[in-house]
Amino acid sequence: MHAALARAAPSAAVIDLCADLPAFKPRAAAYLLPAYTAQAVPGDIVIAVVDPGVGGTRACVCLDADGVLYLGPDNGLLAIVARRARRTRAWALPVSPEASPSFHGRDVFAPAAALLSQGAIPPPWPAISVDSLERPAWPDDLAEIVYVDGYGNAVTGSRVSGLGLGLRAHVGSHALTLSRTFGDVAPGKPLLYVNSAGLLEIAVNGDSAARCLGLDVGTAVRFEA
Amino acid sequence: MHAALARAAPSAAVIDLCADLPAFKPRAAAYLLPAYTAQAVPGDIVIAVVDPGVGGTRACVCLDADGVLYLGPDNGLLAIVARRARRTRAWALPVSPEASPSFHGRDVFAPAAALLSQGAIPPPWPAISVDSLERPAWPDDLAEIVYVDGYGNAVTGSRVSGLGLGLRAHVGSHALTLSRTFGDVAPGKPLLYVNSAGLLEIAVNGDSAARCLGLDVGTAVRFEA
Amino acid sequence: MHAALARAAPSAAVIDLCADLPAFKPRAAAYLLPAYTAQAVPGDIVIAVVDPGVGGTRACVCLDADGVLYLGPDNGLLAIVARRARRTRAWALPVSPEASPSFHGRDVFAPAAALLSQGAIPPPWPAISVDSLERPAWPDDLAEIVYVDGYGNAVTGSRVSGLGLGLRAHVGSHALTLSRTFGDVAPGKPLLYVNSAGLLEIAVNGDSAARCLGLDVGTAVRFEA
Repeated sequence: MHAALARAAPSAAVIDLCADLPAFKPRAAAYLLPAYTAQAVPGDIVIAVVDPGVGGTRACVCLDADGVLYLGPDNGLLAIVARRARRTRAWALPVSPEASPSFHGRDVFAPAAALLSQGAIPPPWPAISVDSLERPAWPDDLAEIVYVDGYGNAVTGSRVSGLGLGLRAHVGSHALTLSRTFGDVAPGKPLLYVNSAGLLEIAVNGDSAARCLGLDVGTAVRFEA
Repeated sequence: MHAALARAAPSAAVIDLCADLPAFKPRAAAYLLPAYTAQAVPGDIVIAVVDPGVGGTRACVCLDADGVLYLGPDNGLLAIVARRARRTRAWALPVSPEASPSFHGRDVFAPAAALLSQGAIPPPWPAISVDSLERPAWPDDLAEIVYVDGYGNAVTGSRVSGLGLGLRAHVGSHALTLSRTFGDVAPGKPLLYVNSAGLLEIAVNGDSAARCLGLDVGTAVRFEA
Repeated sequence: MHAALARAAPSAAVIDLCADLPAFKPRAAAYLLPAYTAQAVPGDIVIAVVDPGVGGTRACVCLDADGVLYLGPDNGLLAIVARRARRTRAWALPVSPEASPSFHGRDVFAPAAALLSQGAIPPPWPAISVDSLERPAWPDDLAEIVYVDGYGNAVTGSRVSGLGLGLRAHVGSHALTLSRTFGDVAPGKPLLYVNSAGLLEIAVNGDSAARCLGLDVGTAVRFEA
């Protein structure tokens, strides 16, 4: 359950996003995906797989969101990307009878990305209505922890826009004010900041916020403007 | 202790198998290796290193198994690959006096793979008898957990062939029937399935089988046809 | 907090050092860096980031140490590399106002490395005195655990030179004599050896030294010649 970004032909390149998406939780990952791919340009190809329903009835799709091509399961993972895009198109990916029912990343999405990277745009798959894709009733920003990185920093699914500079976050019994970077608070103290992908994130200067504050994917955060 | 696969010249490519082999346990890894490299074609080069005896008396070898070239320690790690191949040859790798006695992956196997990838096939090393390689009295399929992946899925060293479709697995006090994929059982319930590498694997839908069922590398599984 | 090594143009190559540097601890990482990059040759580019002060007052610098170009924060991380080099030069890296204050690895060091890899040597940045870089009063060798790898092997910041062959290490209540490789002691027993990067390392044959001996980054080791 990983996201990878490739640049389409002729200057094919693969950019490793250096971040696993949270396992089993398409809703949490749905808010990371547009943040992680904010710098993608038209023609870029993104494979995103958080896919607990792999091999079941959910479809495999390609979503063109403002020219960036996303490949993934139709389980809501692409819903926030689709909602924020100005122009969208979609296609249904073929699933070979030989595909492993437990590993569509290898047998469906990767071959589809390979085809796109060879310049097959628009792709030769059946076009489907973007309105037919999964559109869960999820909020525009998610006030929850959606990812904990290797340092124990805890990323929320919320952007700062509209929340304002006097912003505070409440998590458990902690109230955090908005800082710029780790060293703006004393070592061992928690902070709230806008991370490098544009999401509000909770960290502890020089330590693990997840451990110090008891945070995990799904922990609720209350923002106060 | 990692396996990497390279395609020999002129179209050199490296395929990252995306899976660490289990540390310290050549026997467990020996059953993963043929599964992970099932799609390798003649001329492909596989470096496989699970090598607790590195720097000791065990030899460093190159095994040609139906045209796929395996480089690794002669401690049984290559024994199941050799047993299943139709045509085999072997060579003894030179070990430079300058090689680190604790890191033959870097100083012996990787340079040997580089030489092979430049087209040196057959390689310029002393040929040895395949019968002289380590041939432990291990079963053809191993009814044990041989690997636990990042999601907590537990891979066994057994293939489904010959076991039949009414197959059940017993592990601890759990009896699991054969399913196709995760969603075939309710969330939180365990399942047995044939994984994407052809091995029988135990998972829990949406959770970690290792944690839920107390599985680890070496845990015995009893299959009942 | 990772180190990556690239070879400058025209034969650009990236070598993944396969080792994260210890998080939050520039002093520990400072002793790993010259060991990990001992085989770098003039023109090679090393990005090294252990940077708890990112976005604060510490500078971003480029250090030329005997022709190898290191990019990193000026927080002591490069101090041991600089101390051991025969010829050094340094430059101050520009930090764009658009750079994320929490991710200079992406927005400062990586673009600088890209520029160097295109042949911009000497780089077009303001030259600064190497004497003006952070020079903490750290010892030439550090008798502490500076890194624990994925197997639980515990690397110290000390080289063997000058310590002699009758060397012993004391850690907690354990006294370890110098061995050549893992198999020189019985399974489950601890050993001291010179690792493949030239640093003294503590391991347990077939098990995790960190767990068996209670070692972590920062644990003191006493060497006795």
